[in-house]
Amino acid sequence: MAEERRISMAVIRRLPRYYRYLGELLEKGVNKISSRELSEKMNVTASQIRQDLNNFGGFGQQGYGYNVEHLHKEIAKILGLHQNYKMIIIGVGNLGQALANYSSFEKRGFKLAGLFDVNPRLIGMSIRGLEVQDIDKMENFVKENNIEIAILTMPKTRVKQVAENLAQWGIKGLWNFSAVDLFLPDHVQVENVHLSHSLMTLAYKINDAEEIN
Amino acid sequence: MAEERRISMAVIRRLPRYYRYLGELLEKGVNKISSRELSEKMNVTASQIRQDLNNFGGFGQQGYGYNVEHLHKEIAKILGLHQNYKMIIIGVGNLGQALANYSSFEKRGFKLAGLFDVNPRLIGMSIRGLEVQDIDKMENFVKENNIEIAILTMPKTRVKQVAENLAQWGIKGLWNFSAVDLFLPDHVQVENVHLSHSLMTLAYKINDAEEIN
Repeated sequence: MAEERRISMAVIRRLPRYYRYLGELLEKGVNKISSRELSEKMNVTASQIRQDLNNFGGFGQQGYGYNVEHLHKEIAKILGLHQNYKMIIIGVGNLGQALANYSSFEKRGFKLAGLFDVNPRLIGMSIRGLEVQDIDKMENFVKENNIEIAILTMPKTRVKQVAENLAQWGIKGLWNFSAVDLFLPDHVQVENVHLSHSLMTLAYKINDAEEIN
Repeated sequence: MAEERRISMAVIRRLPRYYRYLGELLEKGVNKISSRELSEKMNVTASQIRQDLNNFGGFGQQGYGYNVEHLHKEIAKILGLHQNYKMIIIGVGNLGQALANYSSFEKRGFKLAGLFDVNPRLIGMSIRGLEVQDIDKMENFVKENNIEIAILTMPKTRVKQVAENLAQWGIKGLWNFSAVDLFLPDHVQVENVHLSHSLMTLAYKINDAEEIN
């Protein structure tokens, strides 16, 4: 795996999209595809596709194209989707509820195991068969159930402390939706979703397009 | 502005984070900061900061550092945050409601003007003073109110058609939360938020870290 170590995060971040497209092709019964065809479907250059996939030793054969099932499986392995993850959601407001209802995560091996909140009005409520629990019960739950991923959708002010606790309890990854940058020990991976950053990027694109036209 | 044209999207995507940090500094009354100090706060290298900001002609002075207010304002201008945007949300389920409740967008000039859904149980419901309207009323609303941005949080199956309609009605930007890639005319900018891609990237980081340790 030493070779994979040098792959840039920019390439890694493009892999889920390949994974999704290949999954759609599989569902349609398509077994092989050329980089040119894949390129037309995905609206990226064929050379970008070849470069990206060559990072992993390349799974294509000259004149044949890619074996869709094999490539799909290999990308899954690279992304770590060949195994399952147990997740909890902390903060069951609208965003937490929206994420709890995403059934597509489960299909990819991300299993929601628990929901936590501090709000007495939410505690006891049931979403997809899971009851929202008091955050006081979280430490035991995380340790007893070997929870790997915590989704942080609670108010900004509480995030830092909760994240540090989770790190101590052995959590492996945090999916952080708050606008707080977390600096944690190396054994905890953090993936931030900054929705406002994405909206600002859209504003940039709008302005940039107007200046061109 | 010809010079800005060559700035890569990778740099652009880092700007909202600078913008947020500089905003926090301003709130604390900090007026100047060196790239070294900013680097420690943001956990990126000082040289990365200098490189990024030099893309815009550089706002720092040797031995003085950056004028926080000036830099904050310049980044706002680059990102297009010096003007206001009128937005609508299409699909007022949990995710749509969560986004409707983000008051921080408004502070940055993104004003929510309308909410639309097809679900009779949601139509008429009020969120932050806005009533959810029947999607049939959307065409007139978009045209009469010069709506610039539409947030797409409705089911995947409807996204393509709605996006094409919005493009015809003169919308400038789509903030797309569905796992559907949109290919639209050049006058419409699209920013995709693929939550499942972000979760897969977290899985990659977890696996990668385990292989190292």
